[in-house]
Amino acid sequence: MAISLKIQESIKNASWIRKIFEEGNERKAEYGAENVLDFSLGNPNLEPPPKFKQVLKELISDPAPGQHAYMLNAGIVKTRQAVADFLNEFGGPRFTSDEIIMTVGAGGGLNVVFKTILNPGEEVIIPKPYFVEYDNYLDNHQGRSRLVGSRPDFSLDLDAISDAVSEKTKAVLINSPNNPTGIVYSEGELKELVGVLSHYSEKLGWPIYLISDEPYRKIAYDGVTIPSIFDLYNESFVVTSFSKDLSIPGERIGYVAAHPDISDKKTIMIGLSLCNRTLGYTNAPAFMQRAIYYLLKDSVDISIYQKKRDMLCDGLASLGYDFIKPKGAFYLFPRTPIEDDFVFVRALQEENILTVPGSGFGGPGHIRIAYCVSDETIEKAMPGFEKVIKRY
Amino acid sequence: MAISLKIQESIKNASWIRKIFEEGNERKAEYGAENVLDFSLGNPNLEPPPKFKQVLKELISDPAPGQHAYMLNAGIVKTRQAVADFLNEFGGPRFTSDEIIMTVGAGGGLNVVFKTILNPGEEVIIPKPYFVEYDNYLDNHQGRSRLVGSRPDFSLDLDAISDAVSEKTKAVLINSPNNPTGIVYSEGELKELVGVLSHYSEKLGWPIYLISDEPYRKIAYDGVTIPSIFDLYNESFVVTSFSKDLSIPGERIGYVAAHPDISDKKTIMIGLSLCNRTLGYTNAPAFMQRAIYYLLKDSVDISIYQKKRDMLCDGLASLGYDFIKPKGAFYLFPRTPIEDDFVFVRALQEENILTVPGSGFGGPGHIRIAYCVSDETIEKAMPGFEKVIKRY
Repeated sequence: MAISLKIQESIKNASWIRKIFEEGNERKAEYGAENVLDFSLGNPNLEPPPKFKQVLKELISDPAPGQHAYMLNAGIVKTRQAVADFLNEFGGPRFTSDEIIMTVGAGGGLNVVFKTILNPGEEVIIPKPYFVEYDNYLDNHQGRSRLVGSRPDFSLDLDAISDAVSEKTKAVLINSPNNPTGIVYSEGELKELVGVLSHYSEKLGWPIYLISDEPYRKIAYDGVTIPSIFDLYNESFVVTSFSKDLSIPGERIGYVAAHPDISDKKTIMIGLSLCNRTLGYTNAPAFMQRAIYYLLKDSVDISIYQKKRDMLCDGLASLGYDFIKPKGAFYLFPRTPIEDDFVFVRALQEENILTVPGSGFGGPGHIRIAYCVSDETIEKAMPGFEKVIKRY
Repeated sequence: MAISLKIQESIKNASWIRKIFEEGNERKAEYGAENVLDFSLGNPNLEPPPKFKQVLKELISDPAPGQHAYMLNAGIVKTRQAVADFLNEFGGPRFTSDEIIMTVGAGGGLNVVFKTILNPGEEVIIPKPYFVEYDNYLDNHQGRSRLVGSRPDFSLDLDAISDAVSEKTKAVLINSPNNPTGIVYSEGELKELVGVLSHYSEKLGWPIYLISDEPYRKIAYDGVTIPSIFDLYNESFVVTSFSKDLSIPGERIGYVAAHPDISDKKTIMIGLSLCNRTLGYTNAPAFMQRAIYYLLKDSVDISIYQKKRDMLCDGLASLGYDFIKPKGAFYLFPRTPIEDDFVFVRALQEENILTVPGSGFGGPGHIRIAYCVSDETIEKAMPGFEKVIKRY
């Protein structure tokens, strides 16, 4: 076979997850899609806010020329300035358009950051459980993930992070609110983390970057505050997208913001812009960049997700499921009563309930339930969830 | 400095081209943008065809849910099927949606193909002059370009290609109509090329792929036919975008088509789809995928570009410039009367005419003139072009 050996290997390694998805699709074919309760995907079920369509309509009526043309690789200046203005409203460091790069979603943004900072073999420390796609993103640039455990409540284990620092460490990557756990890191934890990073940056002689992947920032519950790393640490990047909070994940629009006081800022920003181009993104989609200008403060109705969280958590708790109640995002990561999460996922499948084994997130002994689904789906799944947990 | 050594190097290496662009921008600031005649960018000056806006308008009025959601990484099935149907109209091999992957432009498509097929150190043979961004795309996946010369008329030098084949050869990449020369390869040349590839594929024991980068396919003049590699060779990929023919380069929408009879097709298509995801593209922008469904047969008015080509070629020929008349795309690649193309580009700059040194395309001793500009720009540049060639 003439294709890349690594890709052959990736295809083989991904076969178990593909198999689970295929089994789910087979069930949908057999029982009808409406009878299969699919909690396996982080594809928001809410429609974008009505203003989104309104903005698109108005943009199309704008007769100005060149609206679908190339722009700077970093993105449309007016949109980048609007992002900077939006960030400035939180009272932290002062941003300008120079520190913002519009990207093809957060996935594009992470790749741009990783390519800009990583030499081959360098490591990014990531607390488990985690979004495993990060491994692929790092591998694209010959970087490596250095996975560390979290505490039982999924908060940061700072000792584990300290122990993981080495001569190869280039960054720590956090994701809060978190996929798959829904945890939100507190300001106290983040301050301690920054203390660790500052200590080792000085010791190593180069900055250990803090990269915060924040597509779920606006999806937070119970009035919880999501602290900003920009208030705590200069050597930092925020990577985010509008995929989840505006329910437009197919449109691939997001941004990278670098701290205004990051070391070597000019070179870093040129590097990010260069990598945005050379990775083949060239620039974030123009039409969506123009739309985002008007939508920075908007989101879907978050209370709807909070209600779904409550329905799911109340329901599963009453059945005896053991989990940390999420403070944000739209995922629940319950412990499985048996060690083998694959067996548990298969048992739920038998009840036409689709979830993902925690092993797929570096968290075996758990399942991930994505509750960005209809209320009806949650309700209808309860008897199946009950049946399966009673068996074990 | 903490950023990647390779990116630091890239920034340094790209500094000459950035310098030339900055000098151009300084001239625009000094003399007014309308007085600087900018032929340096392949950013089409024509607006998208009116149908494009019409289609976007209709799509926004469509009340169906989930239109901005994730879809299969390979893209929306309906759009992929439409691309297949479009390709089938040319009477070559029969495509289905299975052989089509929607991508973030042709840049995204090339990266997806390269990542899927290349092992570290493997080579892709590319005839010079060429779009140097290919080097970056290959380097992203630890591949290498193996550059070979072309004949004086920019047609394929098959001896040079044969000589370049080695144990490291994975593919040959062509671009027709070509950036920067505007050349269109004839069916005869391509048949000979396929003969070479078939011969060496057999000898080496693996297929040498033929990858055709074709964003300018619809921009062809004088009724010239652009042969399809799909009619000639099974081990082939076409990568293209709608950037140039619909004048929407900022929107980042294109596709990869693999030959229906390519070896190991199933694995290759899984690989392309996987790489589309893992490279951080995830999928091509959803809204543009939906628009493209209605626009596969459309394009800007190509006769306008043909008229620009004629204006520019007639003008420059009468001044004594030496060039191969382009058959497609919107670039002219004249020889410089002096060896040093940088000096010639600077001399044109002094006349407020911006072009790019041929060295930036692996073709020193030439300049690239992108004539996707207004007729007025072409007219106004003639005295400057005259003054500079008279000096040398």
